[in-house]
Amino acid sequence: MKIALAQQNYHIGNFESNTQKIIEAAEAAKAKGADLIVFSELSVCGYPARDFLEFDDFIKKCRQAVETIAGHSKDIGIIVGAPERNPVKDGKDLFNSAWFLYDGKVHAVVHKTLLPTYDVFDEYRYFEPAWEWNIVEFKGKKIALTICEDIWNLGNNPLYRICPMDKLMGFNPDFMINISASPFDYTHDEDRKAVIKANVEKYGIPMFYCNAVGSQTEIVFDGGSYAFDKHANLCGSLPLFREDMQIFTLNDDGSMAEPVLETADRLPAYELDPHHLDANLNLAQIYDALVLGIHDYFKKMGFRQAIVASSGGIDSAVTLALAVEALGNQNVRAVLMPSQFSTEHSVDDAVQLSKNLNNPYDIVPIKDIFDSFTHSLKPIFGDLPFNVAEENIQSRTRGNLVMAIANKFNYILLNTSNKSELATGYGTLYGDMAGGLGVLGDCYKLQVYALARYINRNKEIIPENIITKAPSAELRPGQKDSDSLPEYHILDPLLYQYIERRMGPNEIKSFGFDPALVDRVLRMVNLNEYKRNQFCPIIRISPKAFGVGRRVPIVGKYLT
Amino acid sequence: MKIALAQQNYHIGNFESNTQKIIEAAEAAKAKGADLIVFSELSVCGYPARDFLEFDDFIKKCRQAVETIAGHSKDIGIIVGAPERNPVKDGKDLFNSAWFLYDGKVHAVVHKTLLPTYDVFDEYRYFEPAWEWNIVEFKGKKIALTICEDIWNLGNNPLYRICPMDKLMGFNPDFMINISASPFDYTHDEDRKAVIKANVEKYGIPMFYCNAVGSQTEIVFDGGSYAFDKHANLCGSLPLFREDMQIFTLNDDGSMAEPVLETADRLPAYELDPHHLDANLNLAQIYDALVLGIHDYFKKMGFRQAIVASSGGIDSAVTLALAVEALGNQNVRAVLMPSQFSTEHSVDDAVQLSKNLNNPYDIVPIKDIFDSFTHSLKPIFGDLPFNVAEENIQSRTRGNLVMAIANKFNYILLNTSNKSELATGYGTLYGDMAGGLGVLGDCYKLQVYALARYINRNKEIIPENIITKAPSAELRPGQKDSDSLPEYHILDPLLYQYIERRMGPNEIKSFGFDPALVDRVLRMVNLNEYKRNQFCPIIRISPKAFGVGRRVPIVGKYLT
Repeated sequence: MKIALAQQNYHIGNFESNTQKIIEAAEAAKAKGADLIVFSELSVCGYPARDFLEFDDFIKKCRQAVETIAGHSKDIGIIVGAPERNPVKDGKDLFNSAWFLYDGKVHAVVHKTLLPTYDVFDEYRYFEPAWEWNIVEFKGKKIALTICEDIWNLGNNPLYRICPMDKLMGFNPDFMINISASPFDYTHDEDRKAVIKANVEKYGIPMFYCNAVGSQTEIVFDGGSYAFDKHANLCGSLPLFREDMQIFTLNDDGSMAEPVLETADRLPAYELDPHHLDANLNLAQIYDALVLGIHDYFKKMGFRQAIVASSGGIDSAVTLALAVEALGNQNVRAVLMPSQFSTEHSVDDAVQLSKNLNNPYDIVPIKDIFDSFTHSLKPIFGDLPFNVAEENIQSRTRGNLVMAIANKFNYILLNTSNKSELATGYGTLYGDMAGGLGVLGDCYKLQVYALARYINRNKEIIPENIITKAPSAELRPGQKDSDSLPEYHILDPLLYQYIERRMGPNEIKSFGFDPALVDRVLRMVNLNEYKRNQFCPIIRISPKAFGVGRRVPIVGKYLT
Repeated sequence: MKIALAQQNYHIGNFESNTQKIIEAAEAAKAKGADLIVFSELSVCGYPARDFLEFDDFIKKCRQAVETIAGHSKDIGIIVGAPERNPVKDGKDLFNSAWFLYDGKVHAVVHKTLLPTYDVFDEYRYFEPAWEWNIVEFKGKKIALTICEDIWNLGNNPLYRICPMDKLMGFNPDFMINISASPFDYTHDEDRKAVIKANVEKYGIPMFYCNAVGSQTEIVFDGGSYAFDKHANLCGSLPLFREDMQIFTLNDDGSMAEPVLETADRLPAYELDPHHLDANLNLAQIYDALVLGIHDYFKKMGFRQAIVASSGGIDSAVTLALAVEALGNQNVRAVLMPSQFSTEHSVDDAVQLSKNLNNPYDIVPIKDIFDSFTHSLKPIFGDLPFNVAEENIQSRTRGNLVMAIANKFNYILLNTSNKSELATGYGTLYGDMAGGLGVLGDCYKLQVYALARYINRNKEIIPENIITKAPSAELRPGQKDSDSLPEYHILDPLLYQYIERRMGPNEIKSFGFDPALVDRVLRMVNLNEYKRNQFCPIIRISPKAFGVGRRVPIVGKYLT
């Protein structure tokens, strides 16, 4: 049997373009002799459609799209993902379903059993889990068809009390198909391959796995669809971060016509170790994910041009380089907004960066505007000393300036805040925290440095001085990040233990961090939830990004 | 048996204050001869604790608090809410549990079965549902103890496939106790009373219902704990929006010693009808909820003083009046920031408002700052005409000014945006959309007018001219809201159908709205999700507020 895997980049709610893309691939696969083509989870509407799923109108449009696609299944089986209504009165009204279309009709519908409801996932908000299971018969073969999480219930601490593949094995299926929308993080491709392989080893039948690709606001789907034969040999691998379609030939004995692929050794488990940053980071994958995240945000929002506040610091430099890669150098405008506290090298470095990238830039000094603010506030402020209020006026003046240029010329402001700053609240709301998309908000400062080195791997794009100088917000004379924050090689691993690993204060102290520092840092993280709550979406590259996947009370008193 | 209901206002993660509050009430109830005292759901840690529940350290602290409280249960039964670990390997690691403490020990633990995972609720993110049920025996009585949602699975379209009270009835319980954290909206107290009564009528035994009170960032818990005898007579009712403890005497025959309370007729089902706004709005409840929402946000965040940008318009006027009620007139500072486009009456009206409220105010004109922005941008903007860029500069200059004063003197900025503006994107990010708490973000413009009339019910607090003049952002000469938006008496009911009732475009058109207008408005709502995503928490008064309870893709193309 010839089975095609099509990993595609969908646009949530854009039924017209999604349907067209699916039909084109089905026609192409049919022309190449495929018996069956497999698309990813909820492909018809895009994943995650979130509360659009609560609109009856939206569900009707999903169903119409499925019927349109079914019309193209005359000589090829087509598996697409779409919600299906629950016919039973009790329980949630929808299932997350795989639709097997053939011969112009709906041949079978299978529902998802395990509904991820953690991190960025909210599936039980919308869907009822399947409570009965059956295989799909097609051309004399019995197919165990599952959806994403359904194959992830292996291991030590399963999240669910049911294992749908165990149920399906009672029907003696010939092979497995899993349709997924499984997002990227810097360890996920390795985890995914291991889980698929573990399923094949456990059940002893081949597996065809089709994942989505493309970025949906903050969540990057990385593709990486796979085909394993019954001996758990990897026989097919679709690329990461781009669309592709490949056809595999499954023999009756559970082997495949395709040669077995070499698989690289698994990378060691990721830990944020400042002494081995480059070694244990999938830097190339992170870079590709960030570029795709920027690209798809603009494309799907209907935007073309980005603007970046370019300070001469490393965060804006890396953001600018990523944006140029994603959108093209002429579509990214840098704005340099020096104040009286900016050092000379800041402007020089930022200018050199834009010269290296060959992207347009402007210089708009903020001193006059800052002075007019302090003059207008003089009757209220009197002779009170310069403090964080005046620092924030500068940052918010820059925010206002860059947004004004964005509004005038239709740019979207890319935010440059990194995860270390966002964690500790080291940023100004409506100032440097402004922007439509947070490019580096899931990258700790040490990871930003590693990205800068990666960007410079072939030639100097980011001027060396930007990488080597001490980081500073330059909002008062001689200011350095280290006046307010611990050194990043201590701060970042500490934050990693708290945020990614959810370690408590006692556990983190037991790892050897200074106890007073642990208390101070965790307090900063929790106190600044109110700032992060107003932050823009952040391209997610880690297993625990700020934003939709991390839901922390603002009004709380835990570790504060 | 004497049963005390204690509805209390908890602080999430503040184990010390929560525990102390619980122990004090238990001691007081014991002194008054109570056999049993009942506290609300997850009372020990506060509800919703959200991702704090993912920290082992947090769960340990919950358990320690339970043990501390158990030490005070020598002569009184105490029911508190706290998470409990799931001893089974498979499934989520926690239960949402009711702990029955007595004689210094844990007497019984009961787990929640129905886990609300919709709107603002995310319980399946953290908890495993109960899969076995038992009653609690205490002083010769059998108690059916359930948690919040467990009693809500009645009616036409139940969200769950199990009804835990049906299971418990197999043990012939003598009465029911339900511990809840059930948040306010303007119809919820009526709904809640009806559901409790329906349970009593269905099962024929008395019910003691204890709800939480107090605001947690955006979610207001309104109390309203109730006691019903076995004949479904209301015998006890705790107040809305404030802490209280009352003791009821349950007789062996299922009657109560307390007299039966008169119950008012149920209000008609709420629909946003512009012609009958005052009649079908629970205005007094909405007012109380907003005041409590402001008060608790400040108290729990450790803040004392608010600042409001007072424009002379109705939104800022109502916000200011609510803030003065919540925090005291001397703790609320108004800042008037007229521009060259402000009409004379704007400043006069705002000054009169602050005179009526007797709260401090300042006037800071923005013309000079605005001019310095346009001057600095002249090399980039050239002779391009005045447009939304210059409008936004004004709004963001005000945001910067009011935040500077807030930063200098430790105020928290209250945001004044209403739900109609937020829905349509009629506001400036980092300008009038700035603030720490959205006071009116869940009130449509028509509801804001109704609130103004309510605030003026005894004397004129909000100057009449503020209520009667045409609304305007005053960012260009002669600007009116109606230049960009439909009239509010059309817009608000249309938005209500889409947002609260989740009607699709065809359904809304079928209600008689102009089809082109429906398409235009729904497009505005969906296109502006990116703005609302950066907005501060909004005090929730409706069944569907923007914010944590409404999760819509930013990058999508549905109805746009």
